Amino acid sequence: MHVHAFIEEMERLAPPDLAEDFDAGKIGLVVEGRTHIVRVCCALDATPSVVHKAVLASADMLVVHHTPLWTPLTALTGRTAGLMRALLSAQINLYVMHTNFDRAKGGVNDALAELLSLTDIESLTSGCIGTCTLSPAEISRRLGGNLRLWGDVKKCSRLAIVAGSGFDPVLLDEAYRRGADAFLSAEMKHSVARSSPLPCIEASHYSLEAPAMKLLSVRMDWLYIDDPPLLQIIP
Amino acid sequence: MHVHAFIEEMERLAPPDLAEDFDAGKIGLVVEGRTHIVRVCCALDATPSVVHKAVLASADMLVVHHTPLWTPLTALTGRTAGLMRALLSAQINLYVMHTNFDRAKGGVNDALAELLSLTDIESLTSGCIGTCTLSPAEISRRLGGNLRLWGDVKKCSRLAIVAGSGFDPVLLDEAYRRGADAFLSAEMKHSVARSSPLPCIEASHYSLEAPAMKLLSVRMDWLYIDDPPLLQIIP
Amino acid sequence: MHVHAFIEEMERLAPPDLAEDFDAGKIGLVVEGRTHIVRVCCALDATPSVVHKAVLASADMLVVHHTPLWTPLTALTGRTAGLMRALLSAQINLYVMHTNFDRAKGGVNDALAELLSLTDIESLTSGCIGTCTLSPAEISRRLGGNLRLWGDVKKCSRLAIVAGSGFDPVLLDEAYRRGADAFLSAEMKHSVARSSPLPCIEASHYSLEAPAMKLLSVRMDWLYIDDPPLLQIIP
Amino acid sequence: MHVHAFIEEMERLAPPDLAEDFDAGKIGLVVEGRTHIVRVCCALDATPSVVHKAVLASADMLVVHHTPLWTPLTALTGRTAGLMRALLSAQINLYVMHTNFDRAKGGVNDALAELLSLTDIESLTSGCIGTCTLSPAEISRRLGGNLRLWGDVKKCSRLAIVAGSGFDPVLLDEAYRRGADAFLSAEMKHSVARSSPLPCIEASHYSLEAPAMKLLSVRMDWLYIDDPPLLQIIP
Amino acid sequence: MHVHAFIEEMERLAPPDLAEDFDAGKIGLVVEGRTHIVRVCCALDATPSVVHKAVLASADMLVVHHTPLWTPLTALTGRTAGLMRALLSAQINLYVMHTNFDRAKGGVNDALAELLSLTDIESLTSGCIGTCTLSPAEISRRLGGNLRLWGDVKKCSRLAIVAGSGFDPVLLDEAYRRGADAFLSAEMKHSVARSSPLPCIEASHYSLEAPAMKLLSVRMDWLYIDDPPLLQIIP
Amino acid sequence: MHVHAFIEEMERLAPPDLAEDFDAGKIGLVVEGRTHIVRVCCALDATPSVVHKAVLASADMLVVHHTPLWTPLTALTGRTAGLMRALLSAQINLYVMHTNFDRAKGGVNDALAELLSLTDIESLTSGCIGTCTLSPAEISRRLGGNLRLWGDVKKCSRLAIVAGSGFDPVLLDEAYRRGADAFLSAEMKHSVARSSPLPCIEASHYSLEAPAMKLLSVRMDWLYIDDPPLLQIIP
Repeated sequence: MHVHAFIEEMERLAPPDLAEDFDAGKIGLVVEGRTHIVRVCCALDATPSVVHKAVLASADMLVVHHTPLWTPLTALTGRTAGLMRALLSAQINLYVMHTNFDRAKGGVNDALAELLSLTDIESLTSGCIGTCTLSPAEISRRLGGNLRLWGDVKKCSRLAIVAGSGFDPVLLDEAYRRGADAFLSAEMKHSVARSSPLPCIEASHYSLEAPAMKLLSVRMDWLYIDDPPLLQIIP
Repeated sequence: MHVHAFIEEMERLAPPDLAEDFDAGKIGLVVEGRTHIVRVCCALDATPSVVHKAVLASADMLVVHHTPLWTPLTALTGRTAGLMRALLSAQINLYVMHTNFDRAKGGVNDALAELLSLTDIESLTSGCIGTCTLSPAEISRRLGGNLRLWGDVKKCSRLAIVAGSGFDPVLLDEAYRRGADAFLSAEMKHSVARSSPLPCIEASHYSLEAPAMKLLSVRMDWLYIDDPPLLQIIP
Repeated sequence: MHVHAFIEEMERLAPPDLAEDFDAGKIGLVVEGRTHIVRVCCALDATPSVVHKAVLASADMLVVHHTPLWTPLTALTGRTAGLMRALLSAQINLYVMHTNFDRAKGGVNDALAELLSLTDIESLTSGCIGTCTLSPAEISRRLGGNLRLWGDVKKCSRLAIVAGSGFDPVLLDEAYRRGADAFLSAEMKHSVARSSPLPCIEASHYSLEAPAMKLLSVRMDWLYIDDPPLLQIIP
Repeated sequence: MHVHAFIEEMERLAPPDLAEDFDAGKIGLVVEGRTHIVRVCCALDATPSVVHKAVLASADMLVVHHTPLWTPLTALTGRTAGLMRALLSAQINLYVMHTNFDRAKGGVNDALAELLSLTDIESLTSGCIGTCTLSPAEISRRLGGNLRLWGDVKKCSRLAIVAGSGFDPVLLDEAYRRGADAFLSAEMKHSVARSSPLPCIEASHYSLEAPAMKLLSVRMDWLYIDDPPLLQIIP
Repeated sequence: MHVHAFIEEMERLAPPDLAEDFDAGKIGLVVEGRTHIVRVCCALDATPSVVHKAVLASADMLVVHHTPLWTPLTALTGRTAGLMRALLSAQINLYVMHTNFDRAKGGVNDALAELLSLTDIESLTSGCIGTCTLSPAEISRRLGGNLRLWGDVKKCSRLAIVAGSGFDPVLLDEAYRRGADAFLSAEMKHSVARSSPLPCIEASHYSLEAPAMKLLSVRMDWLYIDDPPLLQIIP
Repeated sequence: MHVHAFIEEMERLAPPDLAEDFDAGKIGLVVEGRTHIVRVCCALDATPSVVHKAVLASADMLVVHHTPLWTPLTALTGRTAGLMRALLSAQINLYVMHTNFDRAKGGVNDALAELLSLTDIESLTSGCIGTCTLSPAEISRRLGGNLRLWGDVKKCSRLAIVAGSGFDPVLLDEAYRRGADAFLSAEMKHSVARSSPLPCIEASHYSLEAPAMKLLSVRMDWLYIDDPPLLQIIP
């Protein structure tokens, strides 16, 4: 498949105009490789390890959620030089779907809702609310463990979920007013927890977003490269 | 003691010009109560529960680390109206020491270093590095538990510590170059963990900063009001 | 009446979207008190004296034209702490209608036009022009005296009026082009008077805006609290 | 005298680096005429009438306090075209001394202090405080009448004065803390009067600043052109 | 003809709303002279020499492409004072048509296309593309000589032209994608030439824009004042 | 030589703190290759052709004047992807000296002065003035031809030179006041030529700056790669 055709297909899956303004110039084809695409790999982040595996797999294209070129740069040095050398030398294209894939039908939040078997789903400004029949322990199990509960999570029959870093006071208020009794996301801050109107469940960023990339890989018959951060709890 | 004399004493403890620029107008006497100060209470945050206990204790002054008036406001409604009503009605003064107390001698970072029995301490831009003989399990015990370890924490013989939210790429690089083998702070973000040059130990923001307020209360003979956020782990 | 119902009624009288952009966040309910509203007081400004009288009158709500929280604040001290203590302790709500009430039908400019018996009224960008049969002496009498005339006010048969601080070069030009022969407002500046295309009548800000609050109080059966600034002329 | 020598002399009288930042590019020689200076006229403002009289007087130079080119312009039309045509056709230079002359020794505030026979003078950030033995009626007489008193002016034995538009909350607070019992300036605003810590005496901008230009003209043997705005009171 | 009628006619020729945003306040009547217009002169720039000739010609109006008041000014000194004195003293109006005339039908780009006998013309964001049967030598002859060729101009059968300073990477890309094989404009920069996707022909700014003013003068029966910059080549 | 030692040597030649603020982040090592440096190439620009020759020459380091990463980027595509692939794949370092080398002793302007045999040299804000005994024809010969003369270049006995794009009104005024009778630089603009106080000699940007890179290559025993833009005149 020509890279242009591949891009068109991706833009159908995750239309670029769904993206937040801050993603301007940071999604789509961010590293240009060869024009003919046969083998596609997919991951959450373009880490050195992921790129190395894509090279070994003779990939023509790597699809990720988080761009490694977030901060605009005028020099290619250090870690970034290494990553770009690996991709450019092997002529691997790098394609990014970020907030456009969060919001796309079948995208990051939808995959998370499916993983948690949510029903009666309503959209929020970001993420959604759904009816949840799982216990916190089962939620933890499905997300790979190591949840942190903030506040008194008595029940989570109506659960708000925002994949990624979603503990924002405005979103928490919205979820509360819309009837959520708990809020699941990643990267809690002390000041936000302090004034949250509802109890919160904090998972890792990776565990909330990787499922969508994995699911997409299955659907598209790509090679998914798993690379979770090493995280453990000392009680 | 007159409130002016009290303020002078506080400014000796935590000189306002040590504060970061973003604290301008947000430290010092942020709510003005009665002018004669007899009873002083102290806490990390001016939560509703803390203020309620200060009122019950007939406090004239409440000293905290985090101002409840962070966002500049043109209306007193909701949660803020309730807090301000409780303080103003009872004529309780509210005094804030923030980044100036983080950096003061005997301040927030020094109290944390003492709690973890660090020796051979060197200053960093924020926080410090010290020799640590504790195991991660003992660190966890002293900080009230529920640590998260990011990366492979093989040893932490030279430990960098930054009380509060200190996982910043620039600080991590500085600590790494200065010989730290682990970095302790709060509020880790996925993107920062991904590119950290050294393993990280994440505690709660409260557990890192409250010790300083407690220690200060003992030293000054104030009433310390403990109010940790409710946090539990599901492995 | 519930405070929500009261607010809805006020928003019908002075729709918030009529307000200038600079009023964003500074109109509506700016201090939140009790939710059940029985007694309402009204004034032009929330001065200490006005708030004191509202407390004595057991008001549940005070409606004013000028917010006392204009400058965004991160501390409640001095004069503002005193005002907020008086309102919050007594659980009096404070509601502000500013430029939205200037422009509302039956609002500040309309009340002034009515006081001066203007007819054949046309709207300006701010304020209006109307046919006026009063002499300057009679205008002065109706506005409580102490007018200053700038330039040669030969006649004011077509009088432009802008309640509040309206001596703006752009407005003066508009009024001149639309056929006004004099311009009534408050707070003249030397540079503006110097280049004004038509003679100006300067009254006090209070005398131009208070009539609307008084009229509204009569209409709504509220208690109007008059508090004009002390102003006298030495010829 | 060559125009360069004239400028040097003016810069000794009112050094440009005393000026406020907002005067950058708006003081000094703002219209360039002939290079040989014999006859000099002086006024507060470069009004059409003042310029006309300067032309009739065959002036080579007109010195004023307020520039007629305040707003940066990309077109010369209307009133400004008329003024510039009159000056440029007659080759009259226009020289402006603004906030640098306010603050200069023997400048605008000093001339006002002298006119009011102030003694024991201390500088303020702007203007000064001095002992005043005049009654408000006598002050009014010396300033040409039509004073407005705001608040209860019981005495003005220590009088703060700021020539021009000086009713600023920060200056009022400074004067109050420094022991003033009244504050004289021009262009009072309602919101400032409302929260002023001391009573205020409002004169016209012209009456406070013109004395300095008149005095300078006498001293330099220039022709002073008086052009007060037409202002009358209707009680 | 009254100057208002003249302006209306000019606004039909070059509608002001065609202008770029940066021309706001810098086109139209930028110097106001007498109101009755009989003799009109026209030139590309209001140079001292052009204005001098307009005065000698007893012009009432001078129409130019480039305003001499581009930088907003708060002083009339030096070269600008001289120009303004000449215009204002002689009461000559100065009217500017800039980017609005570039884009107008029959305007600057159209006149250039006509001069180069272009056919099959398509519009670009700025300028246009047309079929060109002239050799570079003949183009040079029609533009007064001294062309510089950047890159290998093999043919210019489809020539993109942008009168004025049009060598912009975005415009070059657009012309290339639209099938141009050469690009004619003025004021080439090294960095732009380095990455240009097609060869470029650089003429002088004057030679590209003056033809439109000359053509307009013929059409309107105005006096055209030619004043090309002195430019010669040393091979 | 280790790349760190190479960088130290370069920073002695062209100290980074001599650079203009706009060069922040855009000079120094902008592409990181291998750490051991044996073969060094040098050119004015990192064009595809220059990079290709550096690869063929087995360079470890390419030193240039103009960075190819000027505009901060969040994607590596098109021409830039090609350049970066060539450099990174071959592990060639790219080092940039820009305005710091312009101003360095023995740098870009000094090399140009030497090429033109200037004597009695005085520094300007940018560039310098020197006594020149060459005719314009000889200057043209030494610069590779194709000069454009703006205005009447009667003599150039005191010649101001600014390598690169230096026709700036402020620099032209400075050179004129300092006694220059002609000004040599590149990239003349019509508006600047129109108001220049002295005649100008326009050469190509390349011809003014390349000599310094060539001279440096000789001095350092590097391989200089010449790549002038293709430029020809049609009279």
